[in-house]
Amino acid sequence: MIKRVAVKDRRFVLQNGAGSDAVHRDPVYSYAVTELIDDSGVKGSGFAFTLGAGNDLVCKAAAFYAEQLKGLDIEEVMADFGSWFYRFSNEQQFRWLGPHKGVVHLALASVTNACYDLWARKRGVPLWKLLTDLSPGQLVNTLDLSYMEDELTKEEALAIIGDEQKTMEDRLPVLSKGYPGYDTSIGWFNYTDDKVKENCKKAVDNGFTAMKLKVGSSNPERDVRRAHIVREVAGCNVKVMLDANQKWNLPEALKICNALKDMEPYWIEEPTHPDDLYAHKTLADAIRPVKLALGEHVPNRVLFKNFLQAKCAGFMQVDAVRVGGVSEFITVSLLCKKYGIPVVPHVGDMGQLHQHLVLFNHIKLGHEALFLEHIPHLKQYFVEPVQIEKGVYITPQEPGSSCDLIE
Amino acid sequence: MIKRVAVKDRRFVLQNGAGSDAVHRDPVYSYAVTELIDDSGVKGSGFAFTLGAGNDLVCKAAAFYAEQLKGLDIEEVMADFGSWFYRFSNEQQFRWLGPHKGVVHLALASVTNACYDLWARKRGVPLWKLLTDLSPGQLVNTLDLSYMEDELTKEEALAIIGDEQKTMEDRLPVLSKGYPGYDTSIGWFNYTDDKVKENCKKAVDNGFTAMKLKVGSSNPERDVRRAHIVREVAGCNVKVMLDANQKWNLPEALKICNALKDMEPYWIEEPTHPDDLYAHKTLADAIRPVKLALGEHVPNRVLFKNFLQAKCAGFMQVDAVRVGGVSEFITVSLLCKKYGIPVVPHVGDMGQLHQHLVLFNHIKLGHEALFLEHIPHLKQYFVEPVQIEKGVYITPQEPGSSCDLIE
Repeated sequence: MIKRVAVKDRRFVLQNGAGSDAVHRDPVYSYAVTELIDDSGVKGSGFAFTLGAGNDLVCKAAAFYAEQLKGLDIEEVMADFGSWFYRFSNEQQFRWLGPHKGVVHLALASVTNACYDLWARKRGVPLWKLLTDLSPGQLVNTLDLSYMEDELTKEEALAIIGDEQKTMEDRLPVLSKGYPGYDTSIGWFNYTDDKVKENCKKAVDNGFTAMKLKVGSSNPERDVRRAHIVREVAGCNVKVMLDANQKWNLPEALKICNALKDMEPYWIEEPTHPDDLYAHKTLADAIRPVKLALGEHVPNRVLFKNFLQAKCAGFMQVDAVRVGGVSEFITVSLLCKKYGIPVVPHVGDMGQLHQHLVLFNHIKLGHEALFLEHIPHLKQYFVEPVQIEKGVYITPQEPGSSCDLIE
Repeated sequence: MIKRVAVKDRRFVLQNGAGSDAVHRDPVYSYAVTELIDDSGVKGSGFAFTLGAGNDLVCKAAAFYAEQLKGLDIEEVMADFGSWFYRFSNEQQFRWLGPHKGVVHLALASVTNACYDLWARKRGVPLWKLLTDLSPGQLVNTLDLSYMEDELTKEEALAIIGDEQKTMEDRLPVLSKGYPGYDTSIGWFNYTDDKVKENCKKAVDNGFTAMKLKVGSSNPERDVRRAHIVREVAGCNVKVMLDANQKWNLPEALKICNALKDMEPYWIEEPTHPDDLYAHKTLADAIRPVKLALGEHVPNRVLFKNFLQAKCAGFMQVDAVRVGGVSEFITVSLLCKKYGIPVVPHVGDMGQLHQHLVLFNHIKLGHEALFLEHIPHLKQYFVEPVQIEKGVYITPQEPGSSCDLIE
């Protein structure tokens, strides 16, 4: 039984330009952390990610949800978590503040993730193991498929999971081989050209075969120059992704993306405003074969459904600490599977939680084991930090979702 | 000079089912109020609307913005308010919580509206008068047109305003005739059939020629029955609008909207999830000639742009206490003008602020003077409550935006 809940505002100042991008020049990586403490003493931890200011608002909203879980048994909650998700996300007064987006939805992510963590810790298994062992019915019961009826009914969800788990055994080797990572930290926006060059070399030496550069300068020549520097140092066998963090308007994006084609980016990420479906569609059609990646700022399954229907993204970067937590992440992953679009999460969690979710996506849902973003900034603050060796994530074996922070 | 700022959490409990709809069964109409007090003693008041829980979160976020206005002259702020809007809505750490939606954007609405109110009070004119008297250049300087470049450049905005103001004189008679209202309160969701019937008669007797019924029942027959009751009592010359408050999923909406066609609704409002662009488009195409109305939960100009591009709405219900305040309301109104779509605001403000904005839209931007929603619930709490006579809003003459609440 959940006996006590606590919500904590944790903030971490970054050093020397780390984490900077075209829009966020001075971020303070922050977590709105929900802790659910069981009467047996087991603690479940989950969080949402913010960039500093307002993290306290997410904490306050998380407390609104978390208080309602007091006195409940986590196994009972998770047996029908889809209903809880529906109930929380449609709390009749609170939903006006979204619905299903912004502060209240980030708060729901924090609480949802704490539930999944507690569930796995109580069972004594890592989250990826818990999720892959669920039956299709148990899994679908953790999802809220409302407003998905035109694209993903309960029956379709059951069928996708049922089909994919037939070949699950074939995908278990990923557990010993490790899940590939990619290096996001070679080229933060504020880094000098020389630092980018140096980081790029290091990444290649460390075994990474994919890496990302921040673009979105007000001076497009800077973007093109730096992109070519990375391509030159990395060579043509390395996947190089470019991330504009929403900086461009549509006319700018059309011009600059075309100018960036030459260096053969693997994707161009968040080219413009994250809400602008038609701008993404126009751009995607204009810059083929280069593909777009998006999702870091897409808050819920309804909007992901629309972006999938628009066929404008080659990669979906749903983030379980942005959407309403693990539950909605899985719903979006199922939709992406239906559409044949790879899920490459944005890791607001620094990969702690997502290392479990991509293993689940690959093993249970049959998603390709493409790669998972790696951001090392907060490693020292986690009780069980991700382990990356030779460019791959080592499969976590501890119970839970690896989201416990050192006090 | 703005000397002092205050943010107040005001909540108003409604009686006997007033305000209830298919999703919000027990709303507490609430305002997150920003007050900007000038060193001359003049006070500007603005607010965002919520349904109760979490109104405090909006207040906290509003304080974050409002504090930054201390020491500034309101005329200077408003001479370039577009830059302020851009700066506030892209505050690099805070924007993660949106961007441009949810709690932080509601908070921006509150502060923005307080700025417009202070501006008008300092000039000693009602807001509609201030706005209609601005030159196209002055007006456009109050707008943030970022991410609009593909549909509404600064030059296009100037041209629309310049063209329309040539015929402005022709539209001044609205000031003495009054702006038509429509009655939202005949059929709140929890009202019995008899009460709906009675209210409907009253509305007709009071001179209303348009009225709205809440639908979105889990029992579609209830919706159809009540819709026909209203049509019967109101007769065929009255416009009857139906409002589902997002209750239906797409397959349900397709079925029920078709069943409702018979009673010839003037529009069907918020049929499904407010984020679901493609569902609205599919539905709009399927139920012609019946038109959809939407916008009450659409948080920003980028999403309005998309809904306009999709051509799925016959009426846009942008609400200046949901989007980022008066400034973004005007941007959306300009876009709607370009697309030839009428603006019929949702009135989270009970019409206090919007009575000014629809006069502006009609006189200055050449929008049709269709009608403005009328909700009487909070009348007694305003210093200068709206005046409705024979179904029309009497033009407010007091300085400001009529948003001052009795302490």
